[in-house]
Amino acid sequence: MTSAAARTALDLTAELGLPDLEEFYRDLHRHPELSRQEHRTAGLLAGRLKAVGCDTVEGIGGTGVAGVLRNGDGPVVLLRADMDALPVTEETGLPYASRTPGVMHACGHDLHVTWLAGAARALAAGRDAWNGTLVVVGQPAEETGSGAAAMVADGLYARVPRPDVLLGQHAAPGPVGLYPHVPGLILSATTDVEIIVHGRGGHGSRPETTVDPVLTAAYLVTRLQSVVSREIAPRESAVLTVGRIEAGTAPNIIPSTARISLNLRTQSEAVRDRMVAAIRRIAEGECHAAGCPREPEVTVGASFPATVNDAEADRRVAAVHREVFGDGTVFDPGPAMGSEDFSLLAADGQPYAYWFVTTTPAATWDAAPGGDDLFAKLDAIPSNHSPHFAPDLSAVGPGVRALVAAALTHLC
Amino acid sequence: MTSAAARTALDLTAELGLPDLEEFYRDLHRHPELSRQEHRTAGLLAGRLKAVGCDTVEGIGGTGVAGVLRNGDGPVVLLRADMDALPVTEETGLPYASRTPGVMHACGHDLHVTWLAGAARALAAGRDAWNGTLVVVGQPAEETGSGAAAMVADGLYARVPRPDVLLGQHAAPGPVGLYPHVPGLILSATTDVEIIVHGRGGHGSRPETTVDPVLTAAYLVTRLQSVVSREIAPRESAVLTVGRIEAGTAPNIIPSTARISLNLRTQSEAVRDRMVAAIRRIAEGECHAAGCPREPEVTVGASFPATVNDAEADRRVAAVHREVFGDGTVFDPGPAMGSEDFSLLAADGQPYAYWFVTTTPAATWDAAPGGDDLFAKLDAIPSNHSPHFAPDLSAVGPGVRALVAAALTHLC
Amino acid sequence: MTSAAARTALDLTAELGLPDLEEFYRDLHRHPELSRQEHRTAGLLAGRLKAVGCDTVEGIGGTGVAGVLRNGDGPVVLLRADMDALPVTEETGLPYASRTPGVMHACGHDLHVTWLAGAARALAAGRDAWNGTLVVVGQPAEETGSGAAAMVADGLYARVPRPDVLLGQHAAPGPVGLYPHVPGLILSATTDVEIIVHGRGGHGSRPETTVDPVLTAAYLVTRLQSVVSREIAPRESAVLTVGRIEAGTAPNIIPSTARISLNLRTQSEAVRDRMVAAIRRIAEGECHAAGCPREPEVTVGASFPATVNDAEADRRVAAVHREVFGDGTVFDPGPAMGSEDFSLLAADGQPYAYWFVTTTPAATWDAAPGGDDLFAKLDAIPSNHSPHFAPDLSAVGPGVRALVAAALTHLC
Amino acid sequence: MTSAAARTALDLTAELGLPDLEEFYRDLHRHPELSRQEHRTAGLLAGRLKAVGCDTVEGIGGTGVAGVLRNGDGPVVLLRADMDALPVTEETGLPYASRTPGVMHACGHDLHVTWLAGAARALAAGRDAWNGTLVVVGQPAEETGSGAAAMVADGLYARVPRPDVLLGQHAAPGPVGLYPHVPGLILSATTDVEIIVHGRGGHGSRPETTVDPVLTAAYLVTRLQSVVSREIAPRESAVLTVGRIEAGTAPNIIPSTARISLNLRTQSEAVRDRMVAAIRRIAEGECHAAGCPREPEVTVGASFPATVNDAEADRRVAAVHREVFGDGTVFDPGPAMGSEDFSLLAADGQPYAYWFVTTTPAATWDAAPGGDDLFAKLDAIPSNHSPHFAPDLSAVGPGVRALVAAALTHLC
Repeated sequence: MTSAAARTALDLTAELGLPDLEEFYRDLHRHPELSRQEHRTAGLLAGRLKAVGCDTVEGIGGTGVAGVLRNGDGPVVLLRADMDALPVTEETGLPYASRTPGVMHACGHDLHVTWLAGAARALAAGRDAWNGTLVVVGQPAEETGSGAAAMVADGLYARVPRPDVLLGQHAAPGPVGLYPHVPGLILSATTDVEIIVHGRGGHGSRPETTVDPVLTAAYLVTRLQSVVSREIAPRESAVLTVGRIEAGTAPNIIPSTARISLNLRTQSEAVRDRMVAAIRRIAEGECHAAGCPREPEVTVGASFPATVNDAEADRRVAAVHREVFGDGTVFDPGPAMGSEDFSLLAADGQPYAYWFVTTTPAATWDAAPGGDDLFAKLDAIPSNHSPHFAPDLSAVGPGVRALVAAALTHLC
Repeated sequence: MTSAAARTALDLTAELGLPDLEEFYRDLHRHPELSRQEHRTAGLLAGRLKAVGCDTVEGIGGTGVAGVLRNGDGPVVLLRADMDALPVTEETGLPYASRTPGVMHACGHDLHVTWLAGAARALAAGRDAWNGTLVVVGQPAEETGSGAAAMVADGLYARVPRPDVLLGQHAAPGPVGLYPHVPGLILSATTDVEIIVHGRGGHGSRPETTVDPVLTAAYLVTRLQSVVSREIAPRESAVLTVGRIEAGTAPNIIPSTARISLNLRTQSEAVRDRMVAAIRRIAEGECHAAGCPREPEVTVGASFPATVNDAEADRRVAAVHREVFGDGTVFDPGPAMGSEDFSLLAADGQPYAYWFVTTTPAATWDAAPGGDDLFAKLDAIPSNHSPHFAPDLSAVGPGVRALVAAALTHLC
Repeated sequence: MTSAAARTALDLTAELGLPDLEEFYRDLHRHPELSRQEHRTAGLLAGRLKAVGCDTVEGIGGTGVAGVLRNGDGPVVLLRADMDALPVTEETGLPYASRTPGVMHACGHDLHVTWLAGAARALAAGRDAWNGTLVVVGQPAEETGSGAAAMVADGLYARVPRPDVLLGQHAAPGPVGLYPHVPGLILSATTDVEIIVHGRGGHGSRPETTVDPVLTAAYLVTRLQSVVSREIAPRESAVLTVGRIEAGTAPNIIPSTARISLNLRTQSEAVRDRMVAAIRRIAEGECHAAGCPREPEVTVGASFPATVNDAEADRRVAAVHREVFGDGTVFDPGPAMGSEDFSLLAADGQPYAYWFVTTTPAATWDAAPGGDDLFAKLDAIPSNHSPHFAPDLSAVGPGVRALVAAALTHLC
Repeated sequence: MTSAAARTALDLTAELGLPDLEEFYRDLHRHPELSRQEHRTAGLLAGRLKAVGCDTVEGIGGTGVAGVLRNGDGPVVLLRADMDALPVTEETGLPYASRTPGVMHACGHDLHVTWLAGAARALAAGRDAWNGTLVVVGQPAEETGSGAAAMVADGLYARVPRPDVLLGQHAAPGPVGLYPHVPGLILSATTDVEIIVHGRGGHGSRPETTVDPVLTAAYLVTRLQSVVSREIAPRESAVLTVGRIEAGTAPNIIPSTARISLNLRTQSEAVRDRMVAAIRRIAEGECHAAGCPREPEVTVGASFPATVNDAEADRRVAAVHREVFGDGTVFDPGPAMGSEDFSLLAADGQPYAYWFVTTTPAATWDAAPGGDDLFAKLDAIPSNHSPHFAPDLSAVGPGVRALVAAALTHLC
């Protein structure tokens, strides 16, 4: 343990007030809020930031929150948590499961908010040990990809100091106690695509008078599999998910349209462009095959870039994590297919570091098949966005400590 | 013109009060109501029945209405109209188009109600010309196949006299002025089937940790095409429509389940059984191929039998229609794939007759491609359940006259 | 038994020489010959015709045979048998199974030739009992649809007298002893369609550099199911079979092309035209979806019309069959999806009659599931073209008798 | 140029006899021979080896050839070329295109044989400059994956000295003059899988009596796309190619079986196992969906492991290539999806090095779209196994020099 940051981090997080933080987490988990509707969550976070002495601004970019702790000369370090939940019906059976039907914190953002509140409290309490300015951000609407951009567009950096470096961490599957770091591309770019198929509606008993958009959409979804299976080089990592399909209202009415929603994950612009072009071509071809009266509408929607860590910023954080948590706890898992709009907060191209904190309960992890193969075990446990995703409460403390240590690498 | 029924029908319908009936029709069209919610429609119909002297009962089987006109000794003849609309967004552009978003009289039941009100008024006004008892029924929920059974189960025939014969007619595509009759099976049996595919949800960027129910449902829908294309003998008439598919809420979440709703049309029990068995087998096979954690749920839902006219009852009605409207206006189009729950009102197995009244505007018909081929032209114009289905106002009078004439064949 | 034809038929077929005919049948079955290669079969038939006194012509339209028996004034009656076998590997396990690998009499044409030889012998032996001219034709290449046209084009009717009526019969599934007759359309039109998909070949490990024609053909075959399942009215009888698909030579080479062979069965020109148009549209759409470098080649190939019996000619034959075999043995099964080029022999539009003779062994029939449902039982037993198709030897005699009786209705 | 190997290589290859080698190459290209049938090729190679003084053994493992040049004490170095061609119809239009219909040197093995002959001649001529033993091997049947194993099983190393190191090189797309090297996994594992679908055959006009294996195979091929698109983690590189599909013999016969041939490429045992399991599961599911009378037969066939270079052996070769050809000519392209059985010649687990030699004509390369993106350009030009694959004659000399230099790194 040689660095000042590591030593200070351990000091400042020796006593975290865990029972209170855990109760905060359970409360957030019980009350998930969809993107852009994080009113209650934002209010609770703002209250906690004020309570520890932050200057706090609310309502940035909708429901965004920022707190500032000025503590003498030194760099400006931004810590960020995202706050929104997902339209998923929770199936964990936890005593503190969601009480809002159809909405769930299935991505761990409730834990992020808890970590951020804990880190702010620890750093505020230990302000004698560091210098500089801490900016903490509760960001809305990460899931829809619009929250970071909305906060910046709404004047975030006119209201809080511009950061020199940005830091963020995300709950991830894996046995509690690991801190995966990647010194470059850690998360993929994401692109939503919407396709509307225009058929010709009619009575379900007379298909010959119609052009069936339900069937056309089904063929289209099966045809789209070939984009990844045949058109993208195997050395590239790419995903095409049709997350949503919707057509028709009754079994015996053939509707006029069908709608499918795609999400793409890519790690290069060229692959993304090739996929979008293939999707357009396939949609056209399938609608021609169906005899559709109109071309399909293919709309490229929400999209954000890959998250590419600054190698030096990430190296510093990874180093302090190794010191604080032990050598074997930090490793490079390689690029993941997940996506984030965190990087959009680095509005001036500042360096940033983003890493994972594993949160799977030990019992769940140990019971998962896969033997010594990390990835095999990961595939066997509930991933983010699953209705069974359930971070362990034992991850509350380590996450706060990881965030505090990361901040101190730049503030000590 | 040799029959008393024909002469009397012409007398009684010489003056129909068409402007009033047409306004009634437009009003009903503007205010469509979904199955089991036909409160306004039922109230308006009941008001008109009372106004012409019927003993009227409301709220039978939910929103059903019946009126009785006792007129001396003689047979009991039941005339029936169905009242419900469909979850279709109207695209006709008519000045009297639906004012209820997402709901439309796309099957002509508004016209049926208008015809019934007109026929009751004409028969009441001309009661000197006939003997017996007229029962008129405004039936709810034909589209969902539950209305006729609900009225019977709710004691319809404890509240109104049991009919000796039942008569019904349906608006159909074809140039205004035709009366297709079939002396046996005129409409097919219908069976709804619901399939729930159980996958394993997760993050859209990590498909390898999930079992994708959206994709599984898409493959299933394409696979189901082979039931009709390969498993049913070409000499049989059968339809399998997937009218509805629904899965997922967001582009980047792989959901846990997908749901598809099928409607089958068949003309024999054996074919129906073979289709249901094939659907089960295919759903099982596709879910096995996908690696689903659970078997699919295949539920056979609403179902009603073929509509099989009593040959003699239909012959009498067809004969009077020939007299009233001219020889060339009545013909046998053969069995259709449409379905009806009308036959369930014949709760004691009474004879019934059911026929079509064509309602396509002459201009639309003449402009349709297909030359002399009736079926080709029919395929080219909006069919029932289409968002463009638009019966012509000129069909109001002939429909009333057809119903009155049919009733009189049994009452004169 | 009132008609002269029936009485004479029974007389002339009282002693048929069955052991010889059965051995002839077994020999033909052992030595099947593909279309246009029926050299041995034609030679054997010609030998038998000559032996009973026919003037015989060989090599008409390739391997066609005709025999003429002039027997005084009277009508010219043509009896026809087709002679070719199929590229099917026999799986019957019969002691007299095919000795030619990959070729099988899976459609019963060996029985047809046997029947024809037997009928010619019986009619020749009994020529005192009738007047007129008998023409017997052994036709090649019925399976490929080219034999009847080839015989006519090669001057058949310059070499034998033009018939006044043509008669033909076909072995069919069903318990030995039935004679299904249809007084109009009995067999459907057939149309072959060939599709070549042009992709771009390459190494199996680098699909991203290719356009995969194997996958494109597979999607195309699944997409073609919707032609029958969605585009053809259920009241129409139509079949689209992809009987052959061929692409690639090795597991790790992506080929440049794929080829699929379709056969359509239809009962109206409009349906056939709609199907061919749909096939073209779907092939184009699927190849566009795949990104094929060239449009697919869609070629309409061999095609022949529906077989439509002359009502009067068929009525006469059906009547004599009822007399000879009993009332319950003749019935109208309705139009079948099978096809024939027999009608092309009626080159001047002469009347013709064509019927079925059932040939399933009684034990097979009785063991088949399906209860009293004829069609259900038919679906459960090996049909024509199956590698298990095996007519019973007990059908040899009745088939000869049926043909003789049919001829005598026009010759007595 | 500091290493002895590099200097000697340039000396020994200063005069290569290129016109003779080019004519040898054109002759081999004109006369391609399929796997295990490389009689002519092996004879020509053996003749050349003898001519330069090698002790030569023929007929090892079928058509394999080995030559030995003992040259004093020192290591034993094995150089290998594979000799077989592919069942591809050449479309290059070259004056020296294949004269054997349906067979083509579409993978460059003719060039490999030419290189090997040239290198043996150069090393024999320059034997004063090196010490040790040179073993040169002409291997049959690389394309079917059986040749290397067959030579070893047939006692290769009882007939020639066991090597201390093995060296091999392969023609690859890319502008003539590049030498891609990878210090570990350079080529993927390959696994062939054969699937036989058992349906029930019958007449094409009566699909309802059959279980259609053509259609089942088509659905299966489309379903298999989901293995790569959904079941394998995007970070893994994997390919599933259906290179061959075969079913049916005629458009109007529904066959009893269909056969598809798959090739898998993987870079880990776990991924391969997961793919094979998914293929079995999908085949079962699809055949259940189809109602097949028997389970499908899924057979794992030819398979060989990944080619994993010894880091040190490859480093030495890469270093000498850099010296001989220039710094910019050697780079690490990362693992490729191609496969080789070369590694099986290292029967005792000896170190080996395997690299690529680019062979695309400069004009073809410059005209290819893709700008500065190497992989984009590679995707745009004919790859190995394409009917358009055509190495440039200008690659003959560099390939010989590369092989000689590699040998000398171990012999000098």
